[in-house]
Amino acid sequence: MELPDIAPRMKEIGAKANKHDDDSDIYTLPVLRDPNTGALVTDSFDIAVYLDNTYPEKPVFPKDTNGFICAVESAYINQILLAYEFLVLRGVEIMRDRSAEFYATTREKYFNKKFAEFSPEGPERDQHWAALEKAYTTTKMWYDKTDGKWLMGGTFSYADIVIACCLFWFKRVLHDDEWEKIAAWHDGQWRRLLADVESECKVLY
Amino acid sequence: MELPDIAPRMKEIGAKANKHDDDSDIYTLPVLRDPNTGALVTDSFDIAVYLDNTYPEKPVFPKDTNGFICAVESAYINQILLAYEFLVLRGVEIMRDRSAEFYATTREKYFNKKFAEFSPEGPERDQHWAALEKAYTTTKMWYDKTDGKWLMGGTFSYADIVIACCLFWFKRVLHDDEWEKIAAWHDGQWRRLLADVESECKVLY
Repeated sequence: MELPDIAPRMKEIGAKANKHDDDSDIYTLPVLRDPNTGALVTDSFDIAVYLDNTYPEKPVFPKDTNGFICAVESAYINQILLAYEFLVLRGVEIMRDRSAEFYATTREKYFNKKFAEFSPEGPERDQHWAALEKAYTTTKMWYDKTDGKWLMGGTFSYADIVIACCLFWFKRVLHDDEWEKIAAWHDGQWRRLLADVESECKVLY
Repeated sequence: MELPDIAPRMKEIGAKANKHDDDSDIYTLPVLRDPNTGALVTDSFDIAVYLDNTYPEKPVFPKDTNGFICAVESAYINQILLAYEFLVLRGVEIMRDRSAEFYATTREKYFNKKFAEFSPEGPERDQHWAALEKAYTTTKMWYDKTDGKWLMGGTFSYADIVIACCLFWFKRVLHDDEWEKIAAWHDGQWRRLLADVESECKVLY
């Protein structure tokens, strides 16, 4: 699915829009249609909640932790977004032309900045790297508060999926040496976490 | 205790420093000396963890939620700090001279800005208010993810204490009409939460 096709296709199938911070609409993937129930669910968090409620065999929201996990997501994503321009720059490099153009122009509007000025090598790129490193230093502090490999100690949750999703994103869009840099931070903790979450979720390539 | 006396007094009693984000030392209150064990504990989060471990009758960290709650604190405080200059301005107004001067000059260094420019009425003050309102809109989204008056639904936790502590701070330092404005947001949710936490913790004035 190319980026400019998401909104029209979502409208066509009757899927709900997601919300920007300013409450305006944005059509996002993933979207889930459940053939067993007919449900059509937009937004990763809401999809995960839907799956937990509908198929409770292996829950990812331990009892009454939905608010906590939503806050973890806020805290984590807001830190990662401090390097968003750099990540968009790398994302554009691996997309097909139509998506690349859509991604670059919508983000130019978002940042009110020309694409060429997104993350030039030098002090701005350095600042993006510093933001990413700080984000993982903070995230490590959270993980260090409990024993066990997951954020909730021995209990796997959607919070670990959220943390791993950005790592998955970086591994996909960054240059190899850039991903290796992140993967090596904190004695390889983030490379391991991504592998653990992929294994726990049976992610197939 | 006046602000400039905290560091020398903490050193005198052998209390540990806390850490700034850049890993430099800062002496902070509260500090706890437990006469039953001789323990001397710095930092609110660590004090709460210590009390939970030592006196487990009424825990505020439900099993394995320490990492979650630490992340909630990051997410919440980082948003509130976007209005920090305004809050320092109001704090200085109610302090005795020695603390007021210490508070203003240390924060001038922190922001690299003259105290008189901290939160002048007009666009900058408006921006601080907008940041506070956005912080509580986000916090409401977290609370809305579970049923019950606490962030963990029916279970009271240190996360609710963290949220309430800033409300307590605002009620103490802001002008009456300013506090009333916050207390009225989201149908009075924050006034109620502060009252509920004070009641749950048996806060006495």
